[in-house]
Amino acid sequence: MVTEETGTRRVSAEKLAGFIVRAFAAAGLPQRDAAIVADLMTEADLRGSDTHGVFRLPQYVRRIRAGGINTSPDIRIIEERASTAMVDGDNGMGHLAMKFAAEAAIDKARNTGIGWVGARMSNHAGPAALYAMMPLRHDMIGFYFAVSSLNHLPPWGGAEPLLGTNPIAIAIPAGEEPPIVMDMAPTVAAFGKVRLQAARGEPMPVGWMIDRDGKPMTDATRADEGFLLPIGDYKGYALALIIGLLAGTLNRAAFGRAVNEVMKSQSIASNTGQSIAALSIEAFAPLEEFKRNVDDIIRTIRSSQRLPNVERIWLPGEQSHHKLQDRLASGIPLTATLRRTLGELAKELGIDPVI
Amino acid sequence: MVTEETGTRRVSAEKLAGFIVRAFAAAGLPQRDAAIVADLMTEADLRGSDTHGVFRLPQYVRRIRAGGINTSPDIRIIEERASTAMVDGDNGMGHLAMKFAAEAAIDKARNTGIGWVGARMSNHAGPAALYAMMPLRHDMIGFYFAVSSLNHLPPWGGAEPLLGTNPIAIAIPAGEEPPIVMDMAPTVAAFGKVRLQAARGEPMPVGWMIDRDGKPMTDATRADEGFLLPIGDYKGYALALIIGLLAGTLNRAAFGRAVNEVMKSQSIASNTGQSIAALSIEAFAPLEEFKRNVDDIIRTIRSSQRLPNVERIWLPGEQSHHKLQDRLASGIPLTATLRRTLGELAKELGIDPVI
Repeated sequence: MVTEETGTRRVSAEKLAGFIVRAFAAAGLPQRDAAIVADLMTEADLRGSDTHGVFRLPQYVRRIRAGGINTSPDIRIIEERASTAMVDGDNGMGHLAMKFAAEAAIDKARNTGIGWVGARMSNHAGPAALYAMMPLRHDMIGFYFAVSSLNHLPPWGGAEPLLGTNPIAIAIPAGEEPPIVMDMAPTVAAFGKVRLQAARGEPMPVGWMIDRDGKPMTDATRADEGFLLPIGDYKGYALALIIGLLAGTLNRAAFGRAVNEVMKSQSIASNTGQSIAALSIEAFAPLEEFKRNVDDIIRTIRSSQRLPNVERIWLPGEQSHHKLQDRLASGIPLTATLRRTLGELAKELGIDPVI
Repeated sequence: MVTEETGTRRVSAEKLAGFIVRAFAAAGLPQRDAAIVADLMTEADLRGSDTHGVFRLPQYVRRIRAGGINTSPDIRIIEERASTAMVDGDNGMGHLAMKFAAEAAIDKARNTGIGWVGARMSNHAGPAALYAMMPLRHDMIGFYFAVSSLNHLPPWGGAEPLLGTNPIAIAIPAGEEPPIVMDMAPTVAAFGKVRLQAARGEPMPVGWMIDRDGKPMTDATRADEGFLLPIGDYKGYALALIIGLLAGTLNRAAFGRAVNEVMKSQSIASNTGQSIAALSIEAFAPLEEFKRNVDDIIRTIRSSQRLPNVERIWLPGEQSHHKLQDRLASGIPLTATLRRTLGELAKELGIDPVI
């Protein structure tokens, strides 16, 4: 089913998480925090977020070693209402701040029906879906908004990348079916996909990027001279802006020009902003009825009429769910390139390699 | 600045609202309710939502007279937590249910930081932005999600229109600048725009619709044989689905196949679902600082570098704000066609015409 690059080898989630813990511990993170981050990064890899899991480990370690991330943060609530909280991540690993924020949002939703928690002074935390999915096991709907760490998107009609591929994720529980999980950037292509095309020496399709004259750009190696295109033209621009205001400005975190400024250095706090909300289903509908209805909609969509040559209609998050099953059973695929990078990191840190 | 069709005449907001009140009163709505709906519909026209204001009056009246809308609804909260409420619209005019829901959400946000209110047994309520903007004057951010009243969008890869152009609107207050207001459907084009092309005898651009074979469709007169396309391919599909689950399924309102079923008849309750949330800014950041920062971002975007041949970079909601200023000063433009339709309606109801 899955086509893999030559030289790709599979490693168990347990082994991968163990390696990540060793790396973070060697870089100075307390064991307990290293374990939390490792579990979340491994979950990202299990669900197929290949550019947001262990792939990021070398960058995280580099940033920690440059002093850009606080290894003993005092993550705390600095402002609170019955259903909202403002978290200061104290420039610790983003995963720690986001887990803390998600738990606070879930607690509040349990008491009042909904909880919305914003975070400032956080850092890159991996895939948005990870956190939007945390409320699921509490029979809640989850929401996550983040300011992405690099700007590649100009306002519609503009030629200065003031906006990022700010992600939005929303997760809705089903009954017997896997949950519906939307996790998207408001751009046609993620910048990681552009880099991948460049690495492969392949051109980009028209519609991914434009150059500084607004003309279609297909040469992925020239990506830094161009801009990503938003989905739905001005609509994706509006979405990127709104997400940035909700996750950045409202949380007194970096947004707009400030994002690219702070990211120029590995040693300056990024002041990344993210927001998480949890919404209790039982505050609106009987839980079992809701889950049955979501199952019905999933099955109706999956079995509905298809366009010619379409083999299957997928639900949002369903492909990730399939990858999760596959990788739990057969391990997480690591390409030869990634294994080499992780091997170098292991040497640098003086720890045992991943495999 | 504004190009208008030949035969277009302007009418003051006051006169237009007066006409709408007369029409609804003649159709059986209590005077007080008629006035509330008229004000909201006029606001839609003032802000340039030309297909969601008085344009809909004949349809609303037809539905009321067919018994499809309850003219004396008992709009009430049927389930409540500290920060959430579930409203039963009792099949009254959607505008009444949504105003009620927005006020409940604002009250809750004042006490707990956020309020989320869902509605079932509601009806079409005009443009999403109207309700997302209600929290603005209370220094809150507003959110609105709705299930649209007709399905023209299949799941990605599908050939059955199970989804609608379900709108999402989010409004964020600024300081001296107009608020940022995003109001979008997750499709490339709204179905109203398709109808407009058909009426003008003009083809649609490639990318708006596909036919049942998945091929681009440009003949707007054949629109009923085709499907709208979502923004960002599978992303817009995911967005339409998620909005439908949040506004429909969670509120025990119609969604999926049920939507087209109930809309076949003018006399059956549509059980339209909508959700509104209000988020207090002061729960996260000092109000004046936040507004100043939003102003800064607006000005940075507006004055940033433009692509060749782009005259101006607009902020989401800014064009509507300009229309509002223009129409408050010079009146709301009514095309000859619309005036004829409203004239016929006036005769039918035995009331004075709009002009």
